[in-house]
Amino acid sequence: MTVRPTLAVVGATGAVGTVLLRILSQRADIWGDIRLIASPRSAGRKLAVRGEEVEVTALAEDAFDGVDIALFDVPEDIAAQWAPVAAARGAAVVDNSAAFRRDPDVPLVVPEVNPAALRRRPRGIVASPDCTTLTMIVALGALHAEFGLRELVVSSYQAVSGAGQAGIETLRRQLSLVAGTQLGTNPGDVRRAVGDGTGPFPEPVALNVVPWAGSLCDEGWSSQEMRVRDESRKILGMPQLPVAVTCVRVPVITTHSLTVHARFEGEVTVGKAREIIATAPGVVLCDDPAAGEFPTPADVVGTDPTWVGRVRRALDDPTALELFVCGDNLRKGAALNTAQIAELVAAEKA
Amino acid sequence: MTVRPTLAVVGATGAVGTVLLRILSQRADIWGDIRLIASPRSAGRKLAVRGEEVEVTALAEDAFDGVDIALFDVPEDIAAQWAPVAAARGAAVVDNSAAFRRDPDVPLVVPEVNPAALRRRPRGIVASPDCTTLTMIVALGALHAEFGLRELVVSSYQAVSGAGQAGIETLRRQLSLVAGTQLGTNPGDVRRAVGDGTGPFPEPVALNVVPWAGSLCDEGWSSQEMRVRDESRKILGMPQLPVAVTCVRVPVITTHSLTVHARFEGEVTVGKAREIIATAPGVVLCDDPAAGEFPTPADVVGTDPTWVGRVRRALDDPTALELFVCGDNLRKGAALNTAQIAELVAAEKA
Repeated sequence: MTVRPTLAVVGATGAVGTVLLRILSQRADIWGDIRLIASPRSAGRKLAVRGEEVEVTALAEDAFDGVDIALFDVPEDIAAQWAPVAAARGAAVVDNSAAFRRDPDVPLVVPEVNPAALRRRPRGIVASPDCTTLTMIVALGALHAEFGLRELVVSSYQAVSGAGQAGIETLRRQLSLVAGTQLGTNPGDVRRAVGDGTGPFPEPVALNVVPWAGSLCDEGWSSQEMRVRDESRKILGMPQLPVAVTCVRVPVITTHSLTVHARFEGEVTVGKAREIIATAPGVVLCDDPAAGEFPTPADVVGTDPTWVGRVRRALDDPTALELFVCGDNLRKGAALNTAQIAELVAAEKA
Repeated sequence: MTVRPTLAVVGATGAVGTVLLRILSQRADIWGDIRLIASPRSAGRKLAVRGEEVEVTALAEDAFDGVDIALFDVPEDIAAQWAPVAAARGAAVVDNSAAFRRDPDVPLVVPEVNPAALRRRPRGIVASPDCTTLTMIVALGALHAEFGLRELVVSSYQAVSGAGQAGIETLRRQLSLVAGTQLGTNPGDVRRAVGDGTGPFPEPVALNVVPWAGSLCDEGWSSQEMRVRDESRKILGMPQLPVAVTCVRVPVITTHSLTVHARFEGEVTVGKAREIIATAPGVVLCDDPAAGEFPTPADVVGTDPTWVGRVRRALDDPTALELFVCGDNLRKGAALNTAQIAELVAAEKA
């Protein structure tokens, strides 16, 4: 189209929506109108995007009239209800929730890894993966293209903002309670100090790590763990890939970290792996322990790429690599990936 | 001996020594004299053990005269120098440092796993494993006895007290700087707030995780990672066991956590695994996610056992188990294991 496409951001006032507006203001501006949509109680608020104040309108059927692409950053149940409405009104929908990720008629897209999957979208909806999957999948996609993945064993160090604004506020409140104290050395002392204030987490998260994220699935797995397995398989087009995941929440505000044990089809070398990581789009190699260089959330937060460090070949298996990977869960882990998908969709229409 | 044995605690004033004195005051009292030994600058201080004040004496050759068993909780270089001196003076030495752990003439002992290894100690020295190894090895020893281990993939969530009192003070100081702020959402903001105050860690540890522990070994491995591999193999008597480890520091005061992907010789069942974990000495099963039950450092700190939760069979490999394991790194991870070894040595002399 010669007219610039109209973009709608649904959930513009949320934690991810807020980051998305910042990202839309920073990236090359390909958009005509940008409409901001949120729940009726946020309607009328004004938010800045591309340096202009834009008034938020209430989520309603006619809010999608004339919209070319709609980005949904809302809870799963809202997305399940409203994404088909937007699609029926003619908008191409990019959804960041889990509502459609497992639907065989909805592609699950990471632009650096499987952009071709965009082509077939019979429901008019494209899904963006979970933030934990996105922390590693760009780097793993590049390594898979060269070496051929055979197995993944993954452990997560997940930031509290993965549980939304409530997660951030919970950690900040708990930190204020434990800072300046001698807590953390006697059984239950942190729990007593925190009391009922565990927010969206089942245990205190300050001075603690909590081996749980999401809801309970079959046989003791968490929904977060199942997502990483299911989504990695779908994105890589490997429905049988063995993936073992344990997800753990840590007291970090934003940026997920993962340890990855990745086994490939044949022998790998660290030299070649580092070369792939250093040259893959969207991935940064940060790996010089002698100089104290490895990625940590404190340095990665606010940046776009996947940062990869601690690249080692398993000492007892020449086909396996060990990695430590960090990514901002609100940027590439959520808002950025949806913006990138929207840009790809806009480009096909151009 | 009918006379109760004389015990010497070398390094009585350190972080582990302090916990050891508490443990000696809590366990069944089998000891005659307990002598407290430390560096000359601590000599003359009085410390409580078994409800009595005991004066600290300076580390010197004649400090070991008449000592039956000497527990060393001192840095590696001090242990390397002084443990052989104590042994030459007739004391059975139990050393908690890394100085002798890889020596083929020094047994590396975990009383619940390989007590028989105590029998052959030609140098008169017994080594106690690293705290990270000890976090998982009692539970893994029990599972190995039933299922036969084939491979381990381990990621750690290590507490700052593993880096001694300086580690604790560093995290507490950093927490005071970040609590009550909005830090943790912009690149480098935590690092700027912390400045040079990273203490024994290469990066800020508050609101962060740091994928590094120990010194740099060959091919990018950390000494902490090599220890977990070498020590697990030695304790289990499996010199070829494939072990892949990534060690990460987290902002927890005390209690290490590990995720463990353990592959066995044949099919495993979660039911049998849970039964083994629930009945193994020194291990507690804490695994009911529906009720919010899994181990976390906040609950485990100050306790003796290895706590095991999140017991799952790998979805894509019926021979593998996933576990989340917590243990107090100053108790079973250090002081308690040395006290247990000393009790075994005392019992053989009785």
